[in-house]
Amino acid sequence: MTSAAEQPAPRKKTGRRPGGADTRRTVLEAARAEFAALGYQKASMRAIARAAGVDAALLHHYFGSKDKLFLAALEFPVDPRLIVDQVLAGDRAQVGDRVARFVLALWEQPTVRDRLLAVLRTAAASEEVAALMRGFMVTEVVSRVAVGLDVPQPELRVELVMSQILGLAMARYVIAVEPLASAPGEDLLPLLARAVQGYLVET
Amino acid sequence: MTSAAEQPAPRKKTGRRPGGADTRRTVLEAARAEFAALGYQKASMRAIARAAGVDAALLHHYFGSKDKLFLAALEFPVDPRLIVDQVLAGDRAQVGDRVARFVLALWEQPTVRDRLLAVLRTAAASEEVAALMRGFMVTEVVSRVAVGLDVPQPELRVELVMSQILGLAMARYVIAVEPLASAPGEDLLPLLARAVQGYLVET
Repeated sequence: MTSAAEQPAPRKKTGRRPGGADTRRTVLEAARAEFAALGYQKASMRAIARAAGVDAALLHHYFGSKDKLFLAALEFPVDPRLIVDQVLAGDRAQVGDRVARFVLALWEQPTVRDRLLAVLRTAAASEEVAALMRGFMVTEVVSRVAVGLDVPQPELRVELVMSQILGLAMARYVIAVEPLASAPGEDLLPLLARAVQGYLVET
Repeated sequence: MTSAAEQPAPRKKTGRRPGGADTRRTVLEAARAEFAALGYQKASMRAIARAAGVDAALLHHYFGSKDKLFLAALEFPVDPRLIVDQVLAGDRAQVGDRVARFVLALWEQPTVRDRLLAVLRTAAASEEVAALMRGFMVTEVVSRVAVGLDVPQPELRVELVMSQILGLAMARYVIAVEPLASAPGEDLLPLLARAVQGYLVET
């Protein structure tokens, strides 16, 4: 958990609003602790609000839903559920192209990419963080995409796509093997698109 | 580097034979140091023999070639070049099936799988080890496979396959996301085979 140790969490100061920077940090620390202790599915907004000493309704107001609070707590630079829309919106014959285009464009932004890789490294180094990510991704991404696909074993197929995206990020940016590391996105696009299309659509 | 710190390396004891367990350890330590200092391509069997205090001809006799010494030094459980044979031997229309079958069968062996994952984790945690692996894989796997393919950008395609294999290993065994983690190999085989076939053969 990246910044949990920055400063000791003040506890049980009821009535604080989640608007200020200090309160935001307190809330995110409480969220990280709650998610780490219970996992994504079992952690609750109510318990996080209580631990942070803020009003639950205000927590909802400022952070939205549990998934948004989770992404903020783990410093995700992008909402992984955006990829759900890429899959389910539009023509099914173009789903591979849409997903590949979306992922490659995301990585073109160095700050987004760096932050995603940091999340990835943290998950690789910590079973606790890996379990958290797993719970989040299955609940918020895999299940949601899978219900919209009419192929056998849709969850397995979505996870194969995720495994390709993960492996490509590792090979391109962490291992940085050439020519893959320096290849322009436009060279990767048709190849990745075809693989994704095969996983998600073809039977 | 896994076992380099086990015991201080005795140096410059010339004339020792690489047959015994102590000498084997000394040679592997010298090899790890040489590979780490110069990278896979520039490291030489001669310099490793000199550092370990053994005869270069005997080093060749006991370890074979530089790539075999590298695999022994990094404790690779399997020669990655076996995959080269899977790609290049036999009917090109079945290459995806052969590669997917080979990889999935390899992972069914828990000791091989655990050792591969240990290598992967080491590479993910250390830029030095990652660079070493990169040098080895490009020289011994990517280049060799690529010359046998008649598609545009063959190296890029081989590396996309490697990225899928890497990502699948991470998702299935490290992140262990379900249903992917528990899916029988036979369920993954046709899906992985199609993706590999697309990368290596289709234009």
